[in-house]
Amino acid sequence: MNSKSKNVSPSVIRRLPKYRRSLLELQTAGISRISSRELSRITGLTASQIRQDLNNFGGFGQQGYGYNVAELFAEVGGILGLDKEYNVILVGFGNLGQAVSNYLQNKIGFNLCAIFDISQGLIGKELSGIKVRHADEMKSFLAENQVDIGIIAADKGSAQKIAEALSEGGIKGIWNFAPVDIIVSGDVVIENVHLSDSLYTLAYYINNRE
Amino acid sequence: MNSKSKNVSPSVIRRLPKYRRSLLELQTAGISRISSRELSRITGLTASQIRQDLNNFGGFGQQGYGYNVAELFAEVGGILGLDKEYNVILVGFGNLGQAVSNYLQNKIGFNLCAIFDISQGLIGKELSGIKVRHADEMKSFLAENQVDIGIIAADKGSAQKIAEALSEGGIKGIWNFAPVDIIVSGDVVIENVHLSDSLYTLAYYINNRE
Repeated sequence: MNSKSKNVSPSVIRRLPKYRRSLLELQTAGISRISSRELSRITGLTASQIRQDLNNFGGFGQQGYGYNVAELFAEVGGILGLDKEYNVILVGFGNLGQAVSNYLQNKIGFNLCAIFDISQGLIGKELSGIKVRHADEMKSFLAENQVDIGIIAADKGSAQKIAEALSEGGIKGIWNFAPVDIIVSGDVVIENVHLSDSLYTLAYYINNRE
Repeated sequence: MNSKSKNVSPSVIRRLPKYRRSLLELQTAGISRISSRELSRITGLTASQIRQDLNNFGGFGQQGYGYNVAELFAEVGGILGLDKEYNVILVGFGNLGQAVSNYLQNKIGFNLCAIFDISQGLIGKELSGIKVRHADEMKSFLAENQVDIGIIAADKGSAQKIAEALSEGGIKGIWNFAPVDIIVSGDVVIENVHLSDSLYTLAYYINNRE
């Protein structure tokens, strides 16, 4: 990764996964080279925005020649850190937690290594060899294992407490599905999934169809 | 809504739910008036961006006086169409579908009126008085009921077919949780939930912590 990438704006970072998705689709379709104009058509972003975004990381295209799809796909993945491995634990194994763990099973690089809940009906259940443990065991698990990401799929009321325990346990990032903005001290990164944002955007476009 | 809002860029629209969330938090905290500078601190967007964004809809603040929190909250909700009601059906009642339906139960204005699945183990189950029906009944249900939004919480392989059936059934918008980009003809709005985008953004920030 280029050293220029330190102060890249959050909106650029949020567009990177989208570029990666489009590039993956292109690769799957057997396309090996693409101009920023074509990439613009696929992503719905302007060609100038795409060039600007990628220039934050050094720029990868060649004037009049476009981007090598496979190379750019790998570069964007590298910028995002998808060439690394992450140990992940999941807190909350209700419907949402189970949906998230199903989802994670196909994600290379994100290794689910423990699941916690407080419900007696769930503790002891197994998912691909991972037993659901009581949340009381989380502290000792974090002390004994190097965990990078904690996923909160618990209810609103317990999310903050879980976040604090994860933070004290030395976690690097929290993927929060509880509909509440959690606050932790230190350098723990928090990524909130706000389903409402997506639903409300849909409502807008339903009311503003052409 | 102001007539200026027709050609507002998608990134502005996507920021509206975020403004609304921040305004709701302010309201809950008992704050009735806020400057764009303070709103900037809370949202992480620049004050100039906030003013520009809101100006797309006519602008609501007064120079040197700021925004009335309750009024702006209501205005943003109105722009998004949250002052209307939507009839919603859910297709797919696995873990993800169940998580989404739990989530919807607290959403005022989004009325879940039917659930469909193909699994015999799920058909006939009830959620707050809504029985899970066989997906074969979807076509007739759509013919007999005015439905605005269809949620796809099925697997990747069946998402496209479901989307086509929803589209033919006269639905206005699709909220798609299947990890595939669906294509429908006509003026059906599609909002894809890409969990990966959020997870990969988290990965980036874990690798670029201060």
